Amino acid sequence: MSLIVQKFGGSSVQDAKHLRNVAGLIAETYLEGNDVIVVLSAQGDTTDGLIEKACEINPGASKREMDMLLSTGEQISVALCAMALEGMGLPCVSLTAWQAGIQSTSVHGDARIKKIDTERVRGELDQHRIVLVTGFQGLNRRGDITTLGRGGSDTSAVALAAAFQADLCQIFTDVDGVYTADPRIVPTARKLEEITYDEMLELASQGAQILHNRSVELAKKFRVNLEVLSSLERKSGTHVKEVTKKVEKTNIAGVARDVSIARVALVGLEHNPGVAFQVFHLLSKHNINVDVILQSIGREDTKDISFTVHKKDLADTVAVLEEHKDTLRFDHITADEHIGKVSVVGVGLMSNSGVAAKIFEALYEAGINIQMISTSEIRVSVLLDEEDVNRAVRAIHDKFFGEV
Amino acid sequence: MSLIVQKFGGSSVQDAKHLRNVAGLIAETYLEGNDVIVVLSAQGDTTDGLIEKACEINPGASKREMDMLLSTGEQISVALCAMALEGMGLPCVSLTAWQAGIQSTSVHGDARIKKIDTERVRGELDQHRIVLVTGFQGLNRRGDITTLGRGGSDTSAVALAAAFQADLCQIFTDVDGVYTADPRIVPTARKLEEITYDEMLELASQGAQILHNRSVELAKKFRVNLEVLSSLERKSGTHVKEVTKKVEKTNIAGVARDVSIARVALVGLEHNPGVAFQVFHLLSKHNINVDVILQSIGREDTKDISFTVHKKDLADTVAVLEEHKDTLRFDHITADEHIGKVSVVGVGLMSNSGVAAKIFEALYEAGINIQMISTSEIRVSVLLDEEDVNRAVRAIHDKFFGEV
Repeated sequence: MSLIVQKFGGSSVQDAKHLRNVAGLIAETYLEGNDVIVVLSAQGDTTDGLIEKACEINPGASKREMDMLLSTGEQISVALCAMALEGMGLPCVSLTAWQAGIQSTSVHGDARIKKIDTERVRGELDQHRIVLVTGFQGLNRRGDITTLGRGGSDTSAVALAAAFQADLCQIFTDVDGVYTADPRIVPTARKLEEITYDEMLELASQGAQILHNRSVELAKKFRVNLEVLSSLERKSGTHVKEVTKKVEKTNIAGVARDVSIARVALVGLEHNPGVAFQVFHLLSKHNINVDVILQSIGREDTKDISFTVHKKDLADTVAVLEEHKDTLRFDHITADEHIGKVSVVGVGLMSNSGVAAKIFEALYEAGINIQMISTSEIRVSVLLDEEDVNRAVRAIHDKFFGEV
Repeated sequence: MSLIVQKFGGSSVQDAKHLRNVAGLIAETYLEGNDVIVVLSAQGDTTDGLIEKACEINPGASKREMDMLLSTGEQISVALCAMALEGMGLPCVSLTAWQAGIQSTSVHGDARIKKIDTERVRGELDQHRIVLVTGFQGLNRRGDITTLGRGGSDTSAVALAAAFQADLCQIFTDVDGVYTADPRIVPTARKLEEITYDEMLELASQGAQILHNRSVELAKKFRVNLEVLSSLERKSGTHVKEVTKKVEKTNIAGVARDVSIARVALVGLEHNPGVAFQVFHLLSKHNINVDVILQSIGREDTKDISFTVHKKDLADTVAVLEEHKDTLRFDHITADEHIGKVSVVGVGLMSNSGVAAKIFEALYEAGINIQMISTSEIRVSVLLDEEDVNRAVRAIHDKFFGEV
């Protein structure tokens, strides 16, 4: 007998029909003799509906009250799903995060799970009940309900899997696994049977929308055996784990794209030491995340610094920098929203210099111009014109996987 | 400085506009220098919407999961109302029943409040925050969310008022107080400034839909100073208290009607002692509440027993009795759904024999036939044809209040 944690997202529980499907999947796992903990998100657009209600009342509502409001969404999901399981004659119980002992940090809207008090859930499992827990939330030291921020339900599932030393943590989504590239862009993309935590992390942060980073980090930390699979088809998905067997000739796990970024350049910075630090310290103080950074020698003893930010942060970034123009001493700022990033991810990628060459070759053959390059231990990213992004993904994917 | 508990029902918080109005009322009370605890029901038809969702999934869902589902309704209300108050710049905090320390019995769907742990709310009041608490719910010993059943939010408000020894507990409704009769039926009905707990109890159980019995009983037990008033008009309502000053000549508080009842008669019961006990014990075991009871001698050494039940219980009542026909030994059952009850309520009413006579006189003059009569210390009820009920209310009201 195993203990399995199963997580279903908002679209998987959006209405009675979908909830019955989810209940069927849970029932199968339970009837095979497993202990089952289920984590659910709020139904479909429930959260958006609640946010709309809040905005109508007070667009500047406190995050504490937003959490109080939004946490009802998952509570509705778990209660309804429990009712569906009851209808199938299965013993079950729905629990809010506080009932399930999920303790979080105090910050509202973006709390972290600190600790899980396992007593209540353990007691329910001992009674052979399927335990349904609200995802995305916790209880802070003050006794207030918190929410975990984006991807929070994945994190709840992984944290529960870690706390209960589950044999498997299944994240059900509307795709059937992790692909070598987005199948909507690259029709020949193939599903991966396995991927390492690190590769998944790079893919996640490089724009693959399957698993949220925080949940993968947590899974890595506690060696949680993760599986990403579809709630609509009964077939195995992609396993995320520490070490994978590489059956393929290449070390590439996949090709990811990100078109939600913008490029900012500070042109004509004076050559004073520490100016780069000043710039990025300033942006960090304003909660602006910076990704690819490039520093180059400009004309006449000045230099330029280019970097990318999320598109939504572009206006703030420019405003903050302009405000400190006198201190930072640059000539002017340029900004470009029409760029995109393509990343190739794979364990041991950087130890194989042939990989980078192969990427550049693919892009050269496709006639695509590279604006900036950034690399990590297991990733190579290139910055391109936004309109070249999809073509670049196909070209690179073909270069690595095309021959198979 | 006083401590005031204010309770607003579902229609008072149904949308952003109504919530803002409620926030305005709360703000006025707070800005006059009072501590304020607010109890809210779920918005308008939220509860019905949730019940519909549940029925679609599983019409036989457990009460435990129904409570888990339905309790989200009040949580949404308190969060939104807190946001409205935040928008006015007022310090406030919304709390679920479990956060507010409301401990209940274990039974789901119809729990009773056992105890209120005042620590959290007291702490918030000490910080000069307006405290908003979800009505209608509690937490049982198992750590599960319960709901209190019909009229539960009134009970929550009164229980909080009792626990915090509030100076006043205001129940806001869509009427501006308790009237001598339903103004829709008796246009000359007058609003009462004051009414005793006992009178209110009799009026409530006799069909006046303003306050639920349980909340009035609790108010009486803990001497909570209750006021029933309108959330739409700024004027004082009706105070419910232990002793009222009687400025009027009559001892009558009001005339109430109830057309939700049906009459059942067991005809031709054998004269065996204890048969009445058997009948009502049987009905009580099936959770059927019986009201007016009349026993009469029938033909040939048999007797008849007539009583009233709620219309919704009629089918069950007849079925249960038919099932036990052999044990109870009666000839046949008759049932009449087209009846109604008119009650006159007033402290010291029975000590004034003139009152009953005046009622019968009024009905005689109106040519209305009385089917059954039932009395208590402070009430006289008559059973009539349903079609005579409104006319009877007007005739009796005119007889007592007409001259004023």
